[in-house]
Amino acid sequence: MKSIDNQSKKEFQIERIAFFSDAVFAIAITLLIIEIKVPEIHGLLVSENSFINAFALLTPRLFGFTFSFFIIGLYWFMHHKMFCYIINYNGKLIWLNLLFLFSIVLMPFSTAVYSEYSTSEYISLLSPYVVYVANICLTGFINFLMWGFIGNPKNQLTVNFPKGDFLQKAKIRSLLLPLVFVVSLLFSWIIDPILGRFVLFLIPILMGLVRNKK
Amino acid sequence: MKSIDNQSKKEFQIERIAFFSDAVFAIAITLLIIEIKVPEIHGLLVSENSFINAFALLTPRLFGFTFSFFIIGLYWFMHHKMFCYIINYNGKLIWLNLLFLFSIVLMPFSTAVYSEYSTSEYISLLSPYVVYVANICLTGFINFLMWGFIGNPKNQLTVNFPKGDFLQKAKIRSLLLPLVFVVSLLFSWIIDPILGRFVLFLIPILMGLVRNKK
Amino acid sequence: MKSIDNQSKKEFQIERIAFFSDAVFAIAITLLIIEIKVPEIHGLLVSENSFINAFALLTPRLFGFTFSFFIIGLYWFMHHKMFCYIINYNGKLIWLNLLFLFSIVLMPFSTAVYSEYSTSEYISLLSPYVVYVANICLTGFINFLMWGFIGNPKNQLTVNFPKGDFLQKAKIRSLLLPLVFVVSLLFSWIIDPILGRFVLFLIPILMGLVRNKK
Amino acid sequence: MKSIDNQSKKEFQIERIAFFSDAVFAIAITLLIIEIKVPEIHGLLVSENSFINAFALLTPRLFGFTFSFFIIGLYWFMHHKMFCYIINYNGKLIWLNLLFLFSIVLMPFSTAVYSEYSTSEYISLLSPYVVYVANICLTGFINFLMWGFIGNPKNQLTVNFPKGDFLQKAKIRSLLLPLVFVVSLLFSWIIDPILGRFVLFLIPILMGLVRNKK
Repeated sequence: MKSIDNQSKKEFQIERIAFFSDAVFAIAITLLIIEIKVPEIHGLLVSENSFINAFALLTPRLFGFTFSFFIIGLYWFMHHKMFCYIINYNGKLIWLNLLFLFSIVLMPFSTAVYSEYSTSEYISLLSPYVVYVANICLTGFINFLMWGFIGNPKNQLTVNFPKGDFLQKAKIRSLLLPLVFVVSLLFSWIIDPILGRFVLFLIPILMGLVRNKK
Repeated sequence: MKSIDNQSKKEFQIERIAFFSDAVFAIAITLLIIEIKVPEIHGLLVSENSFINAFALLTPRLFGFTFSFFIIGLYWFMHHKMFCYIINYNGKLIWLNLLFLFSIVLMPFSTAVYSEYSTSEYISLLSPYVVYVANICLTGFINFLMWGFIGNPKNQLTVNFPKGDFLQKAKIRSLLLPLVFVVSLLFSWIIDPILGRFVLFLIPILMGLVRNKK
Repeated sequence: MKSIDNQSKKEFQIERIAFFSDAVFAIAITLLIIEIKVPEIHGLLVSENSFINAFALLTPRLFGFTFSFFIIGLYWFMHHKMFCYIINYNGKLIWLNLLFLFSIVLMPFSTAVYSEYSTSEYISLLSPYVVYVANICLTGFINFLMWGFIGNPKNQLTVNFPKGDFLQKAKIRSLLLPLVFVVSLLFSWIIDPILGRFVLFLIPILMGLVRNKK
Repeated sequence: MKSIDNQSKKEFQIERIAFFSDAVFAIAITLLIIEIKVPEIHGLLVSENSFINAFALLTPRLFGFTFSFFIIGLYWFMHHKMFCYIINYNGKLIWLNLLFLFSIVLMPFSTAVYSEYSTSEYISLLSPYVVYVANICLTGFINFLMWGFIGNPKNQLTVNFPKGDFLQKAKIRSLLLPLVFVVSLLFSWIIDPILGRFVLFLIPILMGLVRNKK
């Protein structure tokens, strides 16, 4: 029985945190599709048109799926970036990470709520959108906390952490997504639900502005 | 064809056990959300209120999901800690680990049973809670067995295993969760089902008392 | 940009095959539980008895879940053991491995078929059991082929492969499970369906007899 | 706190991209089976025949499952091959990879659509097949883009990249699958839906012709 060095064991333990998170991300991002059922043709006449009409009813769900896929993908990307600098861990980091994953796992549910009520019939309803925006806000806020926690030199979790405004930018980026969604929600409420959704196109623009060169 | 050293191959085999377990944990923790369906609005009137009322009916399930998420998360954390010391494996460890994962995989089911019958209408029913508590007890007991097995120097599975009361504390922590749940069950049975649930708030306090410094 | 050595890249590629397989195993083993739904209480009277009766109806499914969990676990164990010796890969190994995973992924389906028709009402039906046994035979047979493929020195996939009857025993173990199931099926058909199931208790005994010391 | 070298951290970050992708592939390939439900026997008479008839109705779904399992498996294999050469990464590669996974995650849905309408009753409908072929085309096209991106020496993502026509062949292979499916769709449309499906047997033959020796 040979002893193995503690450094390699610690690295392996950090890898496990990352891989466990990856698996949770992967399942959450894939479960989104489960909510979309095969279109059923009703009535006796089976024609291309009846299929296309049935398929068209799925549009809001397919849109919601696509949208949430890339939102979860974006958070995975942020998580991936964060673990670039982590060389140590403690119990608090693990609990913060679990809290973050908790919010990610809720996404397929809140996406389904939001998509289900995105048809023209229900679009004026604000509360389903509130559920979705609340989920985004929770995810962004915990991400913000995590950056603050690992960025604190007292916790000794990172090495080669970039100087300058790197940490500040990372924190701002964490809060940017929730901010745009809250603005979109306000627009939906005060002005118009359709117009409110268009506010979301600001996301790629703002994310591009507050970027950290990799 | 170059020969690779056995030590690195053995480490890889241990990693596979950990990563397979991680994947099972990740799926079990994510499947919990599948049981929660999008609230359906019945009746002709579509209003914010009707959505909010339908959503409110999900509260016991959302609570059950949140609760079990962190219970599974806690067991993952314990598993993560345990593998910190493992540098060897044998068939018995693999079977014990599979048995442990078996109990984890049952959690989404027992959580669904317990949540489904947690509404005011059914809260007086004891048997659904028994199902949940039995699952917690099984998980805790197998965790206890695993600590005993890897802690036994005869099995030669660990290195740098902390001296003193480390193993004892780890074993006690394994049984603490089941203990609190059994007490909560007794309270639910003899005194009051709502009061019984409040016993669970003891978990973080007791876990904090019997802690191993990392 | 630094060049990395090919050996470490090749090892990483083999790890990916193992981890991808682990993920598929983990999902298949966890999906089993999805088929078991929360027992529903029918009728107006809500009592402990009505819950227990509803829960009792789940027994064949819970038994089927438990059984298949450990069957998949056993195959994962065999897969884990096999990759202990693999230090190289080629396209054929990847396709054989995919074929093996295909059979594993079918398990939650065939388990559900078999469990659904295991109630006293349907136990005399042979065809659902045929579906399950066919799945086990397919898995065992591909496992047998894989041992033959990696054990062939011409393919240059292994190193430090144990001499003596190691390969032969591994191949026999692959076919043992299918064999016992076919015998159990014959017993179910000719003598009695309940008695046929008891044949399966031979599995641990026979597996113990044809063991390779690790 | 010891510093770890950047090279090993970068390798770990690339591994995470590969393992995250593996997990998504693994879940997508396993979710296919979820769409196939246990055959239900209707009517009062429970006989082997009634089970076999009910099971026979699942044939198109089982066929669709098998087919898509190996299509996803083939794309996983291509992804595995691609990461053989990647020793660096940037944001664009991560987004391209996410786009690729997006298309893979859609596969269980489009497979279900296509299988559901593959019974003799619906086989003449072209639109469900269009959905499936569109998904295959998207996957193949993004795969093609990825090869172009990593193969571009300016991006500095690869090392030891094979000279000669390796990249060209990899790109052609990416587009081969979509091409055969489009031809099959045209045959289904112009000549006959059954005959159109037979065009797909060209896939293994063509893939064998444009092969890169590993």
